[in-house]
Amino acid sequence: MMNETVNLEAAFQQIPEPWVPVVAGELNGQQVKLARARGSYIWHHLADEDELFLVLKGTLEIHLREEDHERVVTIGEGAFFIVPRGVEHKPVAPNGDAHLLLFEPASTRNTGNVDHAHTIEPGELTTLD
Amino acid sequence: MMNETVNLEAAFQQIPEPWVPVVAGELNGQQVKLARARGSYIWHHLADEDELFLVLKGTLEIHLREEDHERVVTIGEGAFFIVPRGVEHKPVAPNGDAHLLLFEPASTRNTGNVDHAHTIEPGELTTLD
Repeated sequence: MMNETVNLEAAFQQIPEPWVPVVAGELNGQQVKLARARGSYIWHHLADEDELFLVLKGTLEIHLREEDHERVVTIGEGAFFIVPRGVEHKPVAPNGDAHLLLFEPASTRNTGNVDHAHTIEPGELTTLD
Repeated sequence: MMNETVNLEAAFQQIPEPWVPVVAGELNGQQVKLARARGSYIWHHLADEDELFLVLKGTLEIHLREEDHERVVTIGEGAFFIVPRGVEHKPVAPNGDAHLLLFEPASTRNTGNVDHAHTIEPGELTTLD
């Protein structure tokens, strides 16, 4: 994986399932993860980690609970958004499959504070071939 | 900048000059930078920072000095490559303008160990509106 170029479109061929991130690169204690999104994820927050969502294909909505209100951020293809640490959020791909690139610390747990069927502990994520 | 989505294509409208990175996002002590590449940059290395180059448009070659040989990595559109810390490298955009997204620690100096007309100290980079 390291020491080679990673073609994003080809990489997504290795990712059949939605919401199961794959590690595509690691640097400075951070990871580049790729994930397909489809429908709704779960509400959760990351206590100590900011999380970047770059949309490579499709559209991603991120529902956010900020202070006393909710808002929805829509990330179109070719755009990114950073969810600050501590903010409750729920990613949703409303129009079928979206392709996401995530930047976050290697320590990040995918469902944050929540235990869920989607949970995969950080050390147990698959790394791209 | 924070708290909003960043559309990459629109952001590049704000970046007229090649090799002058602009900060487009910050998270976990790292920065997302955008840069145009045109022709050859300079040989340099970053002592303590790995550096990710994601090519959004065009093609980027990275010349690398590894142990006793040189090699050239070609990063096509939609692909990324991570230059490990300490490795001498020279980015080259051989076919005109390329659009790059860089991910690296906020402490990173753009010309690394080299003082050059291209040098901009980390705190003095422009941040995207």
